[in-house]
Parts: sequence; structure tokens; C-alpha cells
Amino acid sequence: MQLINEKYFQLKKIDDKNIHSIQNKINSKTKPLGSLGKLETLATKLALILGSEKIPEIKPTLLIFAADHGISGNGVSIAPPEVTQQMVFNFLQGGAAINCFCRVSNIPLQVINAGINSPINHPQILNQPSGNGTQDFTKSEAMTEAQLNHALLAGIEITNSKVNEGNNVIGFGEMGIGNTSSAAAIMAAVLKTPADECVGRGTGIDDTTFNRKLKLIEIALQRHQSQMNSPFDILRCVGGFEIAQMVGAMLQTAQQHKVILVDGFISTAAALVASQINSHVIDFMVFCHESEEQGHKRMLNYLGSKSLLNLNMRLGEGTGAALAVPLIFAAKEFYNNMASFSEAQVENVVIK
Amino acid sequence: MQLINEKYFQLKKIDDKNIHSIQNKINSKTKPLGSLGKLETLATKLALILGSEKIPEIKPTLLIFAADHGISGNGVSIAPPEVTQQMVFNFLQGGAAINCFCRVSNIPLQVINAGINSPINHPQILNQPSGNGTQDFTKSEAMTEAQLNHALLAGIEITNSKVNEGNNVIGFGEMGIGNTSSAAAIMAAVLKTPADECVGRGTGIDDTTFNRKLKLIEIALQRHQSQMNSPFDILRCVGGFEIAQMVGAMLQTAQQHKVILVDGFISTAAALVASQINSHVIDFMVFCHESEEQGHKRMLNYLGSKSLLNLNMRLGEGTGAALAVPLIFAAKEFYNNMASFSEAQVENVVIK
Repeated sequence: MQLINEKYFQLKKIDDKNIHSIQNKINSKTKPLGSLGKLETLATKLALILGSEKIPEIKPTLLIFAADHGISGNGVSIAPPEVTQQMVFNFLQGGAAINCFCRVSNIPLQVINAGINSPINHPQILNQPSGNGTQDFTKSEAMTEAQLNHALLAGIEITNSKVNEGNNVIGFGEMGIGNTSSAAAIMAAVLKTPADECVGRGTGIDDTTFNRKLKLIEIALQRHQSQMNSPFDILRCVGGFEIAQMVGAMLQTAQQHKVILVDGFISTAAALVASQINSHVIDFMVFCHESEEQGHKRMLNYLGSKSLLNLNMRLGEGTGAALAVPLIFAAKEFYNNMASFSEAQVENVVIK
Repeated sequence: MQLINEKYFQLKKIDDKNIHSIQNKINSKTKPLGSLGKLETLATKLALILGSEKIPEIKPTLLIFAADHGISGNGVSIAPPEVTQQMVFNFLQGGAAINCFCRVSNIPLQVINAGINSPINHPQILNQPSGNGTQDFTKSEAMTEAQLNHALLAGIEITNSKVNEGNNVIGFGEMGIGNTSSAAAIMAAVLKTPADECVGRGTGIDDTTFNRKLKLIEIALQRHQSQMNSPFDILRCVGGFEIAQMVGAMLQTAQQHKVILVDGFISTAAALVASQINSHVIDFMVFCHESEEQGHKRMLNYLGSKSLLNLNMRLGEGTGAALAVPLIFAAKEFYNNMASFSEAQVENVVIK
């Protein structure tokens, strides 16, 4: 198996030689300067990544990476681990929130078994598990080096496959009971910040569960501190298979010069690790939704990014990414087809 | 001509006898309790207005009311008054931001001449002017009683026409150089708050223009103070034809038990006046986008409402309303078709 390390990703700073022509094009449109706010930033990003003469047709797809977490056996969620598999079935049957949101925007959805406890046979699932759930990271490393490498490679491969199918905007969602614990531990390790600033209520846990979750994450961080010296080590020690596959897939999406739609807290934890492996990946990311999970805003600040939406959601699954897709369409449409002052014969009051 | 006064609108408090079954339906869905945030509030509103067994097919339409303002002759905007007409042409040719945003969500767009300075002949425009621009409200009342009545009635008629065509979600946008001045004066009069808390930068005016605009609005408020004793008087003294037509159209939309999509600062000023005429109209409103215009947040607070989107836009035209339409589709889809815990055989961890 090919070894995936930081040298595998040959990402460079995004070529911004056209940034002035992009800005001029946006500023020439029939509107007050800057008055489309975040949609102007979004259009600029799309133009830089996909093409600035005209942004090409947007072909979005959404990936849900599902996996189980050893730590969930300790009761860190309102739900037992079995719910991961049950929700995967729900995705496959079209009954979950993410199915609804993908349906209304015609976004093809791919469910990926990245490492759930019990395999699922279904014609629509992509089975590429890196294990049957991670180990409980309060007691040992979450995964082996071989499992981590498998996960990164599996992520790379799904991206390549989706890009080969013609997709140029890839949304990243996830499902895994216990994965806010993993994401919080990753965040604490990367930001070198106390666990209590990273741990949140997840699906809606009570005080007792919250305190147990916090304590367990503190124990885990203590246990692995000496060996978490690289983003790869952090993933291996406290990560999850869905998060590790997302890291590989996000980096490869950037390598393929396509757009990464980052969803909520877990998806952003993957984005954070990816950015530690190669910081240029951030140029390819659109942060879609600011979660209610308390650590999310802090991670976004660390990444120097702002989200498009804030709908007070805290669900994951890629729901924030799916809801942001219509804004991608809107940004592309105004960039390509909105009239300039001269085209529309409107008095240009912008450039004095 | 029929006289439109507060008695014309027979709005009552929305019937909420189904609120518990709506809440139970949403809470039974396969997601943590409350985890869809603002989309749950939105789905509840759609169910209350349009039907709670199943939210019916959403048929949105967007109306842009265009009019000119006498005050714009004093230089309160970056743009001269001619730009209103030029932008109306731009709408009719499909070149403006609102055209782009309506196109990507298949929203039919109706441009309405509510009272621009020079009439326009075009097969797609609805000409129902209540005058050729308002009077400069720093020097006299903006419009006569007859003009106000015409505007309210014209608004009622366009709503009836759109509802007869089958639309159940009506978005309200506007165009009119000078109309942030009118909206700010309306806001100050209704909220009884100093003008400097209502006046903003509009399209992006500099300090000198801002100070002139503020001073003119203070003069107007002073001049009309003694006669602005009702929402109708406020509209007549400092309103605009597009705003007055929106007030009539919004109230009639509620009367017809349909959904009102409120856009930015100007559209919210119309919503504010409508709510002063009959407070139950608010139950039918979805506030779509929080504008960068400084008074907007304060008006939303006054109305006890929060907007769905905050994209740092400040353009009007109905752009925020159009961008919120995909969220309406998403809310309807999850309400109608997302699986419950029992349907999906997912362990119900929500109701303990």
C-alpha cells in the first residue's frame, strides 16, 4: 500500500494572478460596491479555483463518511453506538435530514462506510472501512499506523473517483456516535488549548454526561501528549476513521483543484488536520455553516474563516454543506451573467 | 375607489390549534431534538400558514416594487434618481442580481412600476404608478391621501392576482433611489427613536452625504411630527410609493393566508408599517436576510424577529428573499418527508 505522508500532497498556494480581473469583473456589476457581501467572497473563491473567465457549470456531490468510535462505549453521547449503523440505513433509505436537503438541490449523495462496527450490505453504500470502529482512545491509540494510512488513501480514492465522474464541488458530511469527542480532542491537540474550550454538548447531552465526556478527553490528551507531534499522530491517537478519510479526501480535492464544502464541527476538525498537513488546502475550502457546538467558532477563527450560514443547527451529516449549495449556484450565476454598468447602460456610481 | 383603512384588513391571530402536533411531528424526526435550529422554526411557520398535515407544494414568486423619491433630488444617495429607471430596465432585461438569484431557484419575478419618475413601456412591467415619484418630504407630505389609498389598493390587487395564479409564498423586493431615507424616516416615526439610530449608509455614501441625509430626515420628522398619528399618516408624510404598495400587498398576503418573505431594510420598513396597521401580519412573515444597514437589526428586534440569513449584503431588490427560498424548500421537504424514529427504526434517544 502506498504510504501517505505530507510529501504526497503537492499543494501550492493557489494561483491568484487573476485576482484583480476577478475583482474588477465583480465591481463592474450593476450594484453598489461590495453590496453582495459574502457572495462576492464566494464568487472570488470559485473563480480562483474553477476558472475566472467564466465559472464553469457547478457539479456538486456530497459524501457522508460514517464510522464508529471506541470512546462511545463510555456513554459520551445521548445515543448508543448502534445508532451509527441505524442512521446509515436511514441515509440509504433516503429518510434523514441530509437526504431531504440533497433532494431539494439535486445533490447526489454517497454514503461511505469508513469504519462502522458492523458492516452493511446495500447496493448504494461504498464499503471502504479502515476497521470496525476505532479503539477507545482513552485507553490506547484510536487506530494503528496501517489503519490511518488506509483511511487517508481511501479518502484520496473516493475524491479521485468523484472528480473523475465530473464533480467539481465536494461536500463533506459525517455520521458517527462519539465523533464530537474525537473532534474535540483533535481540536485541543492542534490548537493546544484546554479541553473545556473544545468539548461541547454534541447531540444534546446533560451536565453529568458532559462532565464525563470532558474528563475522558482530558485523560486521552494526557495519555497521548508525548506522541502527538504531527497532524498524522493526532489523527492516529484520537481521530476517527471517518475523520481520517475526510482529511485524505479534502487534501486530494484541493490537489485536484476542486472546491471543498466544509460542514460543521466534525468536518471542520478534519479541515483543521488537513490544514496542518498542508496549509494551502484552506484556499479550496468553503465553510458552510457555523454549528451551535461551542468549539466550532473557535476553530473557524483559528482557520481565519467565516461560515456562510448560521442556522443554529447542530446535526452534521453534511446538512450545512447541502444547504450552502444554492449559494454556490447564486454566486456562480451573478459572476457569470449579471450585467455590468456599461452592458446595462446604468450610470456607474461605483467608481468615482 | 375603495377606501383602505385598518378595518379593511380582517386579520386575526393565526390559528395555532395544531401547534403541538406540528412540534411532535418535528420532534419525532430522526435527529437530536431541536438540531435543525431555524429550519424547525421555519417549518413550523409554513405548517401553521399553509397546512400542517403536509406542507403543500411551495409556489414562490418575487415582486419588485420600484418608485422614485422626491428627497433624492437633495443628493442623499451615491446615485442620481435616473438610476431607478435604469435599474428597472436592467430587471426587465434579466441583468440584475435579483434576476440571477431568481433564475437559479426558478422564482418568477414581477417588476412593478409603483411610481417612478418616468413611465416605462415594456411587455413585462406591471404599470400601476401611484404618482411620478413622491414629493420631497422635507418640504411637504410625500404623497396625498388619494395617492396613498391608490398605493395600498394597488398592493392588495397585485397580491390577489399572484395568489389567484397559485402562488403561496410571496417575496417582497424594491428599487428606488432615495428609499433608505424614506425607510429610515418611517422607522424613526414608528419606533419613536432618534433619526441617527435609523439612518445608514444606504448604497455606500460618504460622511458628508450621510450627515446631509441625517439632517434632512431630522427636518422631515420635525415638520410632520404633529400629523404622524397613525401608520397611514406616517406613510403619507414620509413614505414612498413602493413602500406603500408593499404595505398593502403584505397585509393582503396575510389576509389570503400565504407566506410573506421580507427582504432587507426597506422591505422591513414596509413590514413594520403593516404590523402597525394589524399586528397579526407578523405571523405570516419570514424575515430572510439581515442587512448591513445599521437600522435593520433594530427593526427586527422591535418586531421580535430574527432573519434566516446574514450574508453581509446591502442591496435590496428582494435579493435576500430570493436567496432564502431554497431554505423554504428544505424546511418543507424535511417536514413532509424526513423519517421518524419509528419509521426508520432508529433508536429514539430524544424523548427519554
